[in-house]
Amino acid sequence: MSDMPKSVRINEEGPREGFQIESAAIPTARKVELIDALSETGLRHMQIVSFVNPKRVPSMADAEQVVAGFKPKPGVDYTGLWLNEKGLERARTTGKLALEGKISIYASEKFSTRNNNRTTAQEFEYARRVLDRYKEYGIPVERGSIASAFGCNFQGDIPTSTVLDIVRRIFEIAEENAIVLKEISLADTMAWATPLSIKRTVGAIREKYPDMRLNLHLHDTRGMGIANAYAGLEMGVDMFDACVAGLGGCPFAGHKGAAGNVCTEDLAFMCEEMGIKTGLDLERLLDCARLAEDIVGHPLPGSVKFGGSLGKLRAAAQ
Amino acid sequence: MSDMPKSVRINEEGPREGFQIESAAIPTARKVELIDALSETGLRHMQIVSFVNPKRVPSMADAEQVVAGFKPKPGVDYTGLWLNEKGLERARTTGKLALEGKISIYASEKFSTRNNNRTTAQEFEYARRVLDRYKEYGIPVERGSIASAFGCNFQGDIPTSTVLDIVRRIFEIAEENAIVLKEISLADTMAWATPLSIKRTVGAIREKYPDMRLNLHLHDTRGMGIANAYAGLEMGVDMFDACVAGLGGCPFAGHKGAAGNVCTEDLAFMCEEMGIKTGLDLERLLDCARLAEDIVGHPLPGSVKFGGSLGKLRAAAQ
Repeated sequence: MSDMPKSVRINEEGPREGFQIESAAIPTARKVELIDALSETGLRHMQIVSFVNPKRVPSMADAEQVVAGFKPKPGVDYTGLWLNEKGLERARTTGKLALEGKISIYASEKFSTRNNNRTTAQEFEYARRVLDRYKEYGIPVERGSIASAFGCNFQGDIPTSTVLDIVRRIFEIAEENAIVLKEISLADTMAWATPLSIKRTVGAIREKYPDMRLNLHLHDTRGMGIANAYAGLEMGVDMFDACVAGLGGCPFAGHKGAAGNVCTEDLAFMCEEMGIKTGLDLERLLDCARLAEDIVGHPLPGSVKFGGSLGKLRAAAQ
Repeated sequence: MSDMPKSVRINEEGPREGFQIESAAIPTARKVELIDALSETGLRHMQIVSFVNPKRVPSMADAEQVVAGFKPKPGVDYTGLWLNEKGLERARTTGKLALEGKISIYASEKFSTRNNNRTTAQEFEYARRVLDRYKEYGIPVERGSIASAFGCNFQGDIPTSTVLDIVRRIFEIAEENAIVLKEISLADTMAWATPLSIKRTVGAIREKYPDMRLNLHLHDTRGMGIANAYAGLEMGVDMFDACVAGLGGCPFAGHKGAAGNVCTEDLAFMCEEMGIKTGLDLERLLDCARLAEDIVGHPLPGSVKFGGSLGKLRAAAQ
C-alpha cells in the first residue's frame, strides 16, 4: 500500500468516448451543456470530440460545432482526438483546442493489421511521419500510448515482454526526434486486464523506467475497471482516463456499447474515500453523471450516481 | 500478492438476495428453474430463500414451495435465512435444507437499535438465547457474522477497533457454549467499504486470529464490489458471498434495489483469470446470469454476461 499516490489526475473522456457511440440525434447544444458542466467539477483535462469520418461516425459529425459552442474554463485543457492528417487539420482549424501529439502503437499486431492495415514495424514508420508533422506544426509530444496492452480479441493475451519492447521502441523514436516523453499510457482497449496483469505489466515498466509517469486507460466491459484502477494505484499510478457516468458503456445487453471506460465519479469516489486527492467536486460530478444520463436517454453504468456518495450520510451520522 | 489464495469458495446468494427485492409476481417454478440451473455450475453452497414475514416481504411468501420444488444436487448445501424463531421453525419444517447456525452481530449500534430495537449488549444477550435453541435442535454453529462492518448510513464509519471488539466478544460467547467457530464473515451491508478499509479491517483481524477463515459479504452499491473482493484476495481471504448476475441490484435509478451483492460470475471471472481456482464453470454461470435476467424481466448489473468471457476469444486467437 505504501506506493499509493497522494493525489491523482483524472482525464475526462466522456464527451468523446460517450457521444461517439450514441446515435447522431443528440443535439449539439446538449453535448456543450455537459462539457460546460464538467468544466465546473475541478477536471483539468478533458477530451471532448473526435475528428473522424462523419460517414463512419455520424455522432461526431458536429465536432466543430461542439468545439465552437463550449465555454472554455481557464486552467482546463480541452482536447480532441484525431486518427489521421485530415482529423489533425480539423482539430487545428478550430483554434480552440489544446493540441497534444503522442506516439501511439498497438501492442497487438493482429489488431493493428486488421484496423490500420499496418504491421507493428509499419506502425512505427507511420509514427515517425506523424512526428515530422507535429514538429512542423509545433505540436508538443509528451505521451507514448500503447493500445490493447493487456490482451486483444484477435491476438489473445499480450505478454509483458511485448509491451516492454514497444515502450523501448517508443523511447527510441522519441529520442531520434529529440522528444522528451513525460508519460506512458497503457490502454486496456478490449478489457482483458485483471488487477494481477495490471500489476505485472505496470511493475515491469516501473522497474525499467522508475521515473516515468504512467497513465491507465481502462475499459469496464468485464466489470474489472475499478479493481484494475485500484491495482494501478497500488503500483503508484497517478493518472487515469475515465468517463463521467461510465459514458461509452451501457447496461443493456442489446446495446453494442457495453465497453465504456471506467467511470469518473466512481473512480473519484474510491480515491477520495481512500484519502487520495483528486481535486474533483464529487457532488458536482454526480450531477454531471445524471445530466449525461438525461442527455443520452438511457441508463449509464456508473454506480455512485445510484448509490450516492457518503459525505452527507457521514455528516448526518455525527 | 503473495498472500493470494490458490482457490476460493463462492457462496451463491442470488435466489435469496435477488428474488427478495423483486415483485411477488415471479412464479415459483421460475425461481426453482434458476436454483436447479445454478446447481450445475459447480457451486457448493447456495442460500435459496428467506423465511421472513410474508406480509413484509411478499416475494418470499412462497419460500416453502421453492424449497419443495428444487432438485437437490449431491454435494451442494442449500440453506435458508431466518431472522427469528418462527423463521427457524419454518426452515426446519422443510426437512430439505442445511441448517447453519451463526452468531450474528451488527457492528453499528445505531442500526441494530433502529432495526432490531436492541443495543449491541442486548444483541449479544439475544445471540446467547439463539445459541441455546441451536443446541436444543442440534444445529451446528460454525460462523460468526458481523453486519455493517465497514460503515453504516446511520452511524457513519465503523472503526476497526469496534469490529475487533465484536469479534472478540463473538469468540467469547462461542467459547462459553463450547462452540468452535470455523469462520468469521464481514458484511459491507451498506456498501461503505473501499479496498483500503477492507485491507485495514481484514488485516487487523488476521493479525489477532491468523488461522481463522474469513468470508466477505460485499455489496456493489457504489461500484466497489469487485475491487473490494480483490483487496480481500490480496489479504488471503478465500471465501465470498455473491449473487449471480448481481441479483439484488438493478441498474435503473428509479429502482430501489441498486444494492446488489458482488456478482458471482464477475468475481469468478476475475479469480480464474488471475489463476485462482473457483471450481465453477464460468460459461454455465453466464447462462444462469442470463436466465436470472429473463426471470426478473429487467437488466441486472453483472458485466461479464454482456462483455463475454475470454476463453473462446483466447482459443480462437491461437
